[in-house]
Order: sequence, then structure tokens, then C-alpha cells
Amino acid sequence: MFSDESLSTDVLRKLRSVVGDEHVRTDPGVLEAYARDATPLFRAYPQAIVEPDDAPQIAEIVRIAAEHRLPVIPRGSGTNLCAATSAQQGGIVLTTARMRRIEEIAPAELLARVQPGVTTAALAKAAGEHGLFYPPDPGSHTVSTIGGNIATCAGGLRGLKYGVTRNYVLGLTAVLGTGEIVATGGRLWKDVAGYDLTRLLTGSEGTLGIITEATVALLPAPETTGTGLAYFTDLEAAGRAVTEIIARGVLPATLEFLDRRCMDAVDAYAHLGLHATAGAMLLFGDDGGDDQVAASLTRMRQACLDSGALSVEIGGVAEAEPLLAARRCTLPALSRLGSLTILEDASVPRPRLAEMVARIDDIARRHDIVIATFGHAGDGNLHPTCVLPSAEDTEAIERAERAFGEIFRTAIALGGTITGEHGVGAAKLPYLAERLGPEQTALLRRIKSAFDPAGVLNPGKLGS
Amino acid sequence: MFSDESLSTDVLRKLRSVVGDEHVRTDPGVLEAYARDATPLFRAYPQAIVEPDDAPQIAEIVRIAAEHRLPVIPRGSGTNLCAATSAQQGGIVLTTARMRRIEEIAPAELLARVQPGVTTAALAKAAGEHGLFYPPDPGSHTVSTIGGNIATCAGGLRGLKYGVTRNYVLGLTAVLGTGEIVATGGRLWKDVAGYDLTRLLTGSEGTLGIITEATVALLPAPETTGTGLAYFTDLEAAGRAVTEIIARGVLPATLEFLDRRCMDAVDAYAHLGLHATAGAMLLFGDDGGDDQVAASLTRMRQACLDSGALSVEIGGVAEAEPLLAARRCTLPALSRLGSLTILEDASVPRPRLAEMVARIDDIARRHDIVIATFGHAGDGNLHPTCVLPSAEDTEAIERAERAFGEIFRTAIALGGTITGEHGVGAAKLPYLAERLGPEQTALLRRIKSAFDPAGVLNPGKLGS
Repeated sequence: MFSDESLSTDVLRKLRSVVGDEHVRTDPGVLEAYARDATPLFRAYPQAIVEPDDAPQIAEIVRIAAEHRLPVIPRGSGTNLCAATSAQQGGIVLTTARMRRIEEIAPAELLARVQPGVTTAALAKAAGEHGLFYPPDPGSHTVSTIGGNIATCAGGLRGLKYGVTRNYVLGLTAVLGTGEIVATGGRLWKDVAGYDLTRLLTGSEGTLGIITEATVALLPAPETTGTGLAYFTDLEAAGRAVTEIIARGVLPATLEFLDRRCMDAVDAYAHLGLHATAGAMLLFGDDGGDDQVAASLTRMRQACLDSGALSVEIGGVAEAEPLLAARRCTLPALSRLGSLTILEDASVPRPRLAEMVARIDDIARRHDIVIATFGHAGDGNLHPTCVLPSAEDTEAIERAERAFGEIFRTAIALGGTITGEHGVGAAKLPYLAERLGPEQTALLRRIKSAFDPAGVLNPGKLGS
Repeated sequence: MFSDESLSTDVLRKLRSVVGDEHVRTDPGVLEAYARDATPLFRAYPQAIVEPDDAPQIAEIVRIAAEHRLPVIPRGSGTNLCAATSAQQGGIVLTTARMRRIEEIAPAELLARVQPGVTTAALAKAAGEHGLFYPPDPGSHTVSTIGGNIATCAGGLRGLKYGVTRNYVLGLTAVLGTGEIVATGGRLWKDVAGYDLTRLLTGSEGTLGIITEATVALLPAPETTGTGLAYFTDLEAAGRAVTEIIARGVLPATLEFLDRRCMDAVDAYAHLGLHATAGAMLLFGDDGGDDQVAASLTRMRQACLDSGALSVEIGGVAEAEPLLAARRCTLPALSRLGSLTILEDASVPRPRLAEMVARIDDIARRHDIVIATFGHAGDGNLHPTCVLPSAEDTEAIERAERAFGEIFRTAIALGGTITGEHGVGAAKLPYLAERLGPEQTALLRRIKSAFDPAGVLNPGKLGS
């Protein structure tokens, strides 16, 4: 359907008349920079980068694209890990880099209204200045954008207690594939007038509409935060502790795990003096009032000890940040071990976490690759990460890809899913039909057509 | 499109072969019972009532209906307040009355899997037996079904702190208008594999699919609950207190208001000794650990006093239930005042609550009707309720309908919506296009077609 040639003078002229000459980029260096996002092994060149300023410009760009049958791929900071912003079929990458305005923080309504290019961290900071709090905190929060967070329904470290991006999106303005601008939802926490387009656009990876503004809910900032660290002989014991924590009525803000390989990598990177022989660690934390946090940490500590923890340390606010930083550095720490790092994402029901990690280890062994696994134990959301010595070793890359295929199928077999929070993109589309079945796959296509009849919005991804 | 004649012998024979003779009902007494739900002024006779037992039977019924172009209207307990289960175009009312099984409570996964006919209260009770808690609690929770709650995205008294039904639906099995059975989502709190069909079906009022099973999230039950009661000279002062509570970082489980008319009605009904002259009351409550609840109530008490409350009383667990029961009896208390009670639903941004109530009072005066207003102050969600002396006075009914039309338009003008939690149904469809605009209304129709190409699922409602 789509061409990979240079854009015609006609198209370029039309695009330039919408956003200005300097905001249509076609120089090879720029196209190269947008040829991939954070997904290894996926590289595809767009034909142009356009940098619009507002929703009417985006509507115009989409109309031009629809007229000329050109893909439009919306992109925030390009931190996506499943090639969701990859220009697989060429076309125009539409970046929200110029749309970084926080339009409004409304404390009495507990909400913020922002342009899509605002970073997660910038929103969190602006909310913090009003004593408020934006809970979703994906790993890339310092650079990732709210538009991208919403397009992928980003998660983070606080999912168990606070939910994911979906839970905070109140209203969206979006440009459909028809070039129409719709405003869904609004400023209200309760609004059932019509189908829930706000949540449908959330996680649709730019295939149904391009988000041009978002209204998101904020919460009062918790008074304090506390964190604890528990070591276990193996992940099975850590998994028992997770079950025990939940069974004792604690729904903590943080409940993260690292396997031994991740611990080694993190300790070599950040010199935290982690336990030298434990098979797994659990990082747990909570927030709220002082007494509440203390009570919660004490209960989690006891649940860990009763589940056979080797040791448990509890820290106050001062220790919380370094510990969470250690967890956040797992990916860069692992990346140092090789030349190519493939970070993946799968979820299983919480009680099957340890079983899933054991199955991952077995799959890695059989395919003769190294996979380290960490993730959000409270959500059953794992990030198996393969580190390969060379980015050129195509044979090893193929083994890794076969291993991940088995991992996704295993997740499905255990009642889980192929992605908890990273998304489907181009990378996981081959597994989506296995997860959803043929009827639902066909339904996704019909929904896609309802929003984007010409199929110009991020083709080759969800709904394809 | 649809016929209002009796069903043909052929159709009846087919339906009977699916569910058994005794579960296809066409006797006039039964049709009469299903000719209306809890919405006054809407009466429409279905041609048959069918009582299926499982998803494959429902799929068969939908296929028969599609073949014969007959509407299928799914129905739980019929507590809907916007004629969402009304057979406006005849057809088959499909009741979930026989599907009342709680399939599973899985404490380690914090979830329940239920058939759609299970009542909200039955689920809450079953969860409670495991120390767990299902937060959504619509006014009709003792009789309303989970299927109906999901179909309408029901709210309740705990929306501010806990969110609404949407926040608790993890996975659904549903029969599409094609007769296909799809399973969306699953048992996971984080799953972004595909468009968010789970949330799209939630609130779709049976127009996109018929829910045959639901997996819902549960939370650990809070340790304790506390409630307080504050009286104010007028609703403006109560509104200031709401803003002040939020500004002090409290996001309480309960924050309900009653205007003077509601207070009079409730006191006459339940003899609670409410303040005799206050213009408005605020019922506030919170749950959690003992210290946490005490701290929260103290802060809310102070926020009320600082906002000019006439008096504030704080109660413990013992007082919480009677106070919440008083709030819950507002509707029956108001209903005693006349022969026809029209309970409505609108939302505005929280800071505009008092302004909205003042506008409602003005609208009621101008149309010479009595409207009492209560609702969820924390959510900006109001229930203006009109009580008419006679159900036969068509002239007064018309005045009430004109008044509500103005109320919905005023809510939209204040940045609000035509329904916060009751839904659109047949009753509010005329206002939906005003809220959504023509592009989004057309988009809703296209989405409807993607799920239900023959248009047999609850026609004349959302997506029509």
C-alpha cells in the first residue's frame, strides 16, 4: 500500500505550508535519528519528520497523509521498547517535541491538562509544586512523554497500589485518521456519556488517533515513603513472600523483584553492597501517613521473614530513593554486560511469578542464551532481559528471538499475557493473534477502521 | 427496522430449542413485568423473555435474533434509571437471572470471577468472607447485578477514593452482535495486548456485546471505617468545605451531600434528628487503619469548621452504618412525597457543585416544579430529583422534562456531563449528541457497527 520513495514535492510543499519550512525535516541525518526507537533490531526509515505545534496542524497533516496514502507515525521521545513508533512502511513521523506546554494544573479539581510532549517527570514536578502527585512512573519517566505514556498505557513501579496510566486519563483531544478532532471525556472522574473512547485511545499506540491534549487526574501527594529490602534463597521463596504480603491485607506502593543475575549486574554498576549469595531480592515500599507506612513496612517485613527470607532491612525516606534508584538502574546495569540488550515484557497471574521465572531460565538454557529477569512482582509483570555479547551475531539473535517466542507462549499458557506495560508495536504483533484469537483480532481490525478508514495512522501495528 | 408483532412460531421454536420451553416466556403478565425498568415514563413491551444459562446459549440466541432482525436487550435486575433496558423496538429481553454463580474467589490474585447475574451485594459478601472488598457500591447494590454494573459502569458512594466499576473490571467474556464469543483482558492488573476492549464494553449498555462472565479485581478489606456529619447554612459553604478537604490532601472514601429538601425528606422517613434549619449537610467518611481514619476524619472536621460549618459530629464504626443508611434512603424518602419520582444524574467539575445546585433550583422554580438534589460531592456528581404529585399530570411531566433538558445543558455549559454514573439509555440519547458533537456521535455509530453489524444488540440506545 505504501511507498518507500522520497515524498513528492507536492506533499512536502503541503506539509511545509502547515507547519513551516523548518519543521519538515528530510535530511538523512534526521531521518536516521528517527529510524528507530528504543527497540533493538527494528530499523526503518521514515520519509519525513514533521514537527507540528497544535491540534489543527496535526489534523491538516493527517488529512494530507490520508489524501496521499502516507503513514503517519506519532512519536514522543522514542523510548518505546516494542517498535511501536517504527516507520515500518515509511511515511511521516509526527513528533510532539514542540508540544511541551503544561496548560493547567487545577488543584481543586485534582487534575492537569497538558500537551502530549510534556515529559512524565515534568508533569510529576509541576504536580509536586501543588502538593499533588502523578502516580504512573515508567522506567523512562525522565524523558518519556505523557502522549507516549497514554498511547502505550504505561505502567511503572507503583502499579499494584495506584494502577497504570489508564486509571489517570480523564479526557483526551485526538485527531482521528479522518483528520477530525474529537474531545473525549473531560475534567470529571465520573462520566458515562457514550462509549469509553478515552480508555480505548489509551494503549492504542497511535493507531486510532493522535493525542493532542490530555487531562489527567492527580492525587494528593503522600506524606511520606518507606522502603524495605528482603533477600531470599531463590525466587520461589520471594514469590511466597509476595503472596503472603497480599494475604496479610497489604497492597503496597512498590513490590519489585530482581533475580540473582540482575543483582550481580546492579551491584557491579552501583556498588550497593547487595547480598552476595541470595538467589533473589524483593524491594518493597509504601507511602502514606507516617504511622501507616511504618505499619505497612512492619507487616511486609514479617511476611518476608515468615516466608523464609534470609534477611530483611527496612529503611526510611532517606533510604527509599537510593533503593528505588538501584531498581531503576537494572536495565543500564544489564546493558553493560554485552553489546545488545533485548528487554522484554510479559505478565502472569501473581502466584505464578516464580514458576514463570523458572520456565524462562529453562528456555534460556535450552537456547543457549543468558536471560536475567526483574520486574513488578506485585503485578506479576516480568522483564526478562537477554544480553548478547555481539550485536552482529545473527545466529545468537535468532536464538534469542526463538526463546522470547517461547516465553510469550508460556506466559499465555500460564494465564498471562504477551505484554503487561510495554505494548505490542511491530515487535509483538506476530504474537497478538495467539493471545487474542481470530474473532478478537478481526474485531480489532474493524475498530481500527472505525477510527482510521484509510489506514494511515501507524500502520503495521495494532489493528493491522 | 423492527417489528412489534408477536414472534413467529419459527423463532419461538428456535429459541425454545436453545434454552428449553420453560425459559422462553411470552405470557402477557411476564411481558408486562419486563416492559419497564426503574425509569419512570418509559414503557415498551418486549415480544419474548428468554432466560439463558450460559454463554453458548446466549451466542445462539443472538444468532437467531440477527437472522430474524430481532432486537436483543440484555437485562440484569432492571434497576436502570435511564431506560437502558427498555425494549423500545420490541424484540427479546435476555435476562441473566439464571446466571448467578460466583465461579471463583482467588484471594492470592485479588480477584473474583462471576456470572453476570450475581448481585453486587452477593459479590461483596463473598469477597468479605475472604477479608476482601469490592469497592463499587451503586445505590441499588442489594439487587443490581454485576453484569448490569459493568454494562453501565456503575458508580456509588466510594468513587472519589476508589473509582468506579471500570477500575475493577479485569476481564470479560462477551457475545458480540455477530454471535461470536470473545474473552477480553483476563486475570491480570496489567495487560496491554490489544485495544482495551474490557473498558470499552464497560459502560456500553449492552449495545456492543452481552457480558457472559466477568473477572473483577478485589482489594484487601479496610480495617475500619469512620464517618462524620457536617451542617452548613447553605450548599455554597458545603461546597467550600469539599474544596478545603481536597486542598488539605484528604481523598476520602465518602463525601456526600444533601440539600435541605432531601434532609427534610430523610428525617421524616428515618427520624434521625437531622439539623432542623441547616441549608445543606455533608456526610464524610474514610476507611483504612485506625490511626489513618482518625487523622483523616479530624482533618475533614477541621476543614468543615474552617469553611463555616454550623456544626460537625464525628462517629466511629458504630455510627457509620446508620449515617450511610440515611444517605442511601434519600431516594425512597423523596419518593414518599409524591406519586412520580424522576431521579436524574449529572456531573460538573467539583468546584462548581454549589453553582450547579443553585442553577438547578432556579430552573425548577422557573418550571414550577420541585427538585431536591443530593449526590456525590467529591465527584461533582449530582442527583437532582423531581417529585410530582401525580403520575397522570402530563402537563407537569412535560414541565419536568423541559427542566431536566435545561439541567443537562447547564451541566455541559459548566464543563460537566449529562450522566456521571446512571448511563444514557433511551432516556438521555437526545442529549448525547449535544455532549459529544457530530464527529464523535458518528464515531460511536461506526464502533457500534464493528461489534454489532446487524444492529440487534439493544437498538435505540448508545451507538444509534
